[in-house]
Parts: sequence; structure tokens; C-alpha cells
Amino acid sequence: LRNLADDGSLQHLSLNTATVRRQADLLAIVEAAKRHGISSLSPWRDQVEAVGLKRAVDAVRGAGFRLSGYCRGGMFPTDTELRADMLDDNRRAIDEAAALGAPCLVLVVGGLPQFSRPGSSPSNDIGEARDQVEDAIGALLNDAMVARVPLAIEPLHPMYAADRACVNTLGQALDICEALDPDGRHRLGVVIDVYHVWWDPNVHAGIERAGKGGRIHAFHISDWLVPTRDLLLDRGMMGDGIIEIRKLRGAVEAQGFFGPCEVELFSNDWWARPIDEVLSTMIERYRTVC
Amino acid sequence: LRNLADDGSLQHLSLNTATVRRQADLLAIVEAAKRHGISSLSPWRDQVEAVGLKRAVDAVRGAGFRLSGYCRGGMFPTDTELRADMLDDNRRAIDEAAALGAPCLVLVVGGLPQFSRPGSSPSNDIGEARDQVEDAIGALLNDAMVARVPLAIEPLHPMYAADRACVNTLGQALDICEALDPDGRHRLGVVIDVYHVWWDPNVHAGIERAGKGGRIHAFHISDWLVPTRDLLLDRGMMGDGIIEIRKLRGAVEAQGFFGPCEVELFSNDWWARPIDEVLSTMIERYRTVC
Repeated sequence: LRNLADDGSLQHLSLNTATVRRQADLLAIVEAAKRHGISSLSPWRDQVEAVGLKRAVDAVRGAGFRLSGYCRGGMFPTDTELRADMLDDNRRAIDEAAALGAPCLVLVVGGLPQFSRPGSSPSNDIGEARDQVEDAIGALLNDAMVARVPLAIEPLHPMYAADRACVNTLGQALDICEALDPDGRHRLGVVIDVYHVWWDPNVHAGIERAGKGGRIHAFHISDWLVPTRDLLLDRGMMGDGIIEIRKLRGAVEAQGFFGPCEVELFSNDWWARPIDEVLSTMIERYRTVC
Repeated sequence: LRNLADDGSLQHLSLNTATVRRQADLLAIVEAAKRHGISSLSPWRDQVEAVGLKRAVDAVRGAGFRLSGYCRGGMFPTDTELRADMLDDNRRAIDEAAALGAPCLVLVVGGLPQFSRPGSSPSNDIGEARDQVEDAIGALLNDAMVARVPLAIEPLHPMYAADRACVNTLGQALDICEALDPDGRHRLGVVIDVYHVWWDPNVHAGIERAGKGGRIHAFHISDWLVPTRDLLLDRGMMGDGIIEIRKLRGAVEAQGFFGPCEVELFSNDWWARPIDEVLSTMIERYRTVC
């Protein structure tokens, strides 16, 4: 199977707006993406808020862009007294995703409650945090279905288990999907980000399982640098690291996923470069190594 | 089940000598450990080499110390032309472990060949690296049995998959053990280091499986700091992070493991402190939070 990129177009490329978040606001990012022939985006919630939801919707629609996701809901583990606020916050995220026409709401599920929702009492019980994640997703499933915004659980690399996401493998995310939405009626699914899952000896089995269940909602790409100098802000541009991106993309497409490759870098290095350099490099790498 | 520490003695505490590697050589570390009532050590190969194997053996025996392991063999993935050297290197490690009376040789299996054995041609095929790991351990099993030094595979945190160890979960390590040594005759087993495995949703199942197979050769402790400022050199002292050390120790002991808790920190912070401060803090934390 050849990757979809082989047609030479950019129709299967999407820009996650965090990749250039330091350089420009969302409206300027839309303009820059358009200049480079990109027509798919995945915006972040704070970037939408900064320009206002209505202007964001107008800009995206005006440019004729499709979205590949909306980042992000989640941060579920919390004290009991903050739980209602946490659920409301996630319901607002679902509504925003619907307004923007996003095909899914990406869930970064949160780690221990003191990091997930600051102000919560400290607990190191990661098993309990995981139970809270499953419980909260269950509580939101119906809202998501009514709004026609599928929820997409993103397993994060285990180095983020304490403070960002206690769902750390594709297998674990799929266990939650199958427990809460066994027949797929609620379209609960996953985001597969190569940065988070490349190391997993079971990643190919997980991709197949996700595909068979129709649960692949998004596919994110970037690269793992050696050495990695910062746990959060040192993701590499595709081709600069060691992830077998093409192989993983082939596996996802072999499961019938035809959504775009969404480029998501958090990188002090790339954030320091001009937006046009980032976008042209990203396009060149997409065409040559993905 | 109460943890063994509850008897108030230090007989179940061991010092991995990397914890104070910047402060002193191996002979001075033995003296310092003795001063603090510690009687179990796990030395590193380069620290042994720095003082000479014979002096190391004499110092450890003279002090009446037991070892809890020898660090380390491994770094298996390699080019074909470097493979014989790699195996010889590991056989020397087995012999040194035997001379020191170590109960096991810890295996840090290596990542991609260009990082595992510099000089090897670059490859990003982590599946192939994993095959090479299994192949090399198979080639060394008999040497280890003859020398009466069991090999102990240490799964490392997934953030080290590219450059240090492509065995990243307890389940994966046990799969290798069961494939190569199904009846346990070669005593192939694992090291369980809380820093590497705490995040794994299957860690408790893995501990039980390792215990049932008689495959737990060593148990290492330290803590996961939030934030973690460096991928390699920012491990925390027990109690300063979020790992449920006591719970994991209880699980290991419930499987009949009665070896010591071996404290292994790589930390720029703790390396900058006086050796007596590190050892007294470690003892206090061992008694209160482990």
C-alpha cells in the first residue's frame, strides 16, 4: 500500500495550530496556511478564545478550510467539588467544536488531580485517576453524540502520565472505548499521535484493533529527537528524529483511515523560527519522509 | 502484608553506586555506606574498572557486603561486524559479576544500533532492534548459567526506547524470558525499577506474572518528579515525587521477593550534595515512605 501523500497534493496534510502558536494568532495562522496551500487545520481552544469563537469560525469557513480536530477537552481527574465545573468546561469544548465543524474533540485526559485540575487535593493514586477518566468520558458521551462531535481519546507518552494524561497506550485507550461504547454507537474513538505511541511494542496491534472498531478519528505526526532536551517542548520536525512515520502512516491507512496527517509540534526550536519557514519545511518533509 | 522495612533495620536496603557516583570512587562509597549501616550494594561496571576488579572484590568482601546486582550488561543492537565484540563485552560483564558475587547481571538492552553501539549504521527499525536483543540474550544464556550469574532484563521507561533500551514494559521483558527460558532453568528474569514501570496500567499484572515465574531478580527505587527537568538526570529521592513506592514494594514482596530495595538515582541535584547527606536522606526516606 502506498501512502496517500504520493499524489503530490496537500489534501491529506493538516496543521495543528499549536505548531506555530508563538508566531501568530489563529487568524494570521489561517492566512499563512492558505498562502502555503494548506487547507486543513486543528485549532487549540485557547487560540480560538484569543480571537473569539465567531471570528475563528468565520476565518476557517471563509478560507474554505476543513478541520481535522479540535484541541482539546479532558483534564478529567479532579476533586469532587470541582467535578461539575470540569464537566461544564468539557461541554463548552464540545459546543465550540460543533460550532467550528470539527470532526472530533481531542481528549487529553489529565494525570493526577493536583496537576489535571489545580486546586484539587494531591493524590498519587494513578489507578483512581484512571477510574475518574473513564467515569467522566462516560458522563460526556451523550452530550458529544447530541452535538455530533465524536470524542477522541489521545493516549499520551508515558512520560506525561503524572501531569498530563494517565491514558498512555493505544491499548488502554481502546479498552476505555470498548467498555463505554461497545457497539460504537457514540463514535468514541482515539487519536493516534506517532510521538506518543511509536515506542509501544503493541502499537501495530493497537492500530489494527482501532481500525477494525472504526475508532481512528485523527492521526498526528512529528518526530522523536535523540537527545530530547525537554520533556514537553522538544518535539522534532518529521525526518529529524527516529520515528518510522511512513510505516505508522501506512498502518493507519491500511485500516481505512483517510483523514489528514496532522502536524503537531511543541518545540522551542520551531517556535523561534518564522512561520513561513516552519510551514514550508513541514510541507517538504511531509512530501519526502511521511 | 506489611513491608519488610517495618523491622527498622537496613538489611533490606541496598545502595546502587550510581546514586553517589560523582561524589566518590567505589572504595570510598563502600566506606561511606558502612558508616551509615548499609550492607548491600549494586556497583556499576565503570566504577569497578576505575579501581580495578580485584580491589573492588576485596573492598566489598572486606566490608562483609552483599551485592544486590551488577550494572550492567546489554547494549545489544549492533551492526553485524560489531556483534562479536558486543557478545565478548557482555561475557566479560558476566565474569566480573561472578567475581564480585553478584546475584544477577542487570541488562540495559540498548535502543537503536547507532545509540546502543556507536559506530553501527543508523537504523530506525525498532522491531529489528528488539529482535537483536532477544537474539543476543539467547546467545548469552548458557554463559550466564555456567557462571551462575542470572541475567536480569530491566525494562526502561519508554522515554529511553530510542537510545537506551527498546524493552519498555514488564510484560515485554517477561515475553522474552518466557520465550528464551520457558522452564526457568536458566534463571532468566527481570529487574523491576519503580521509576521505569510505575506509569504502566499493567504493572501489577506484570509483577504477579513475574513473581509466579520466579523471575524477580531485583527491585529498584527512586521517585518521579513533577516537573521532570531532564530525561536522564532528574530522578527524585523517594518521597519527593508521585510514585506509589510502598504499594509497588508491597506487590513485589507479596510475590515472595525478599531481596533488598536498591536505591538508584541519576540526579544532577543529588550528585551535587555531600555523600553523607545523600545516604542519611536515603535511609530516612526508606524508613518513612518505602
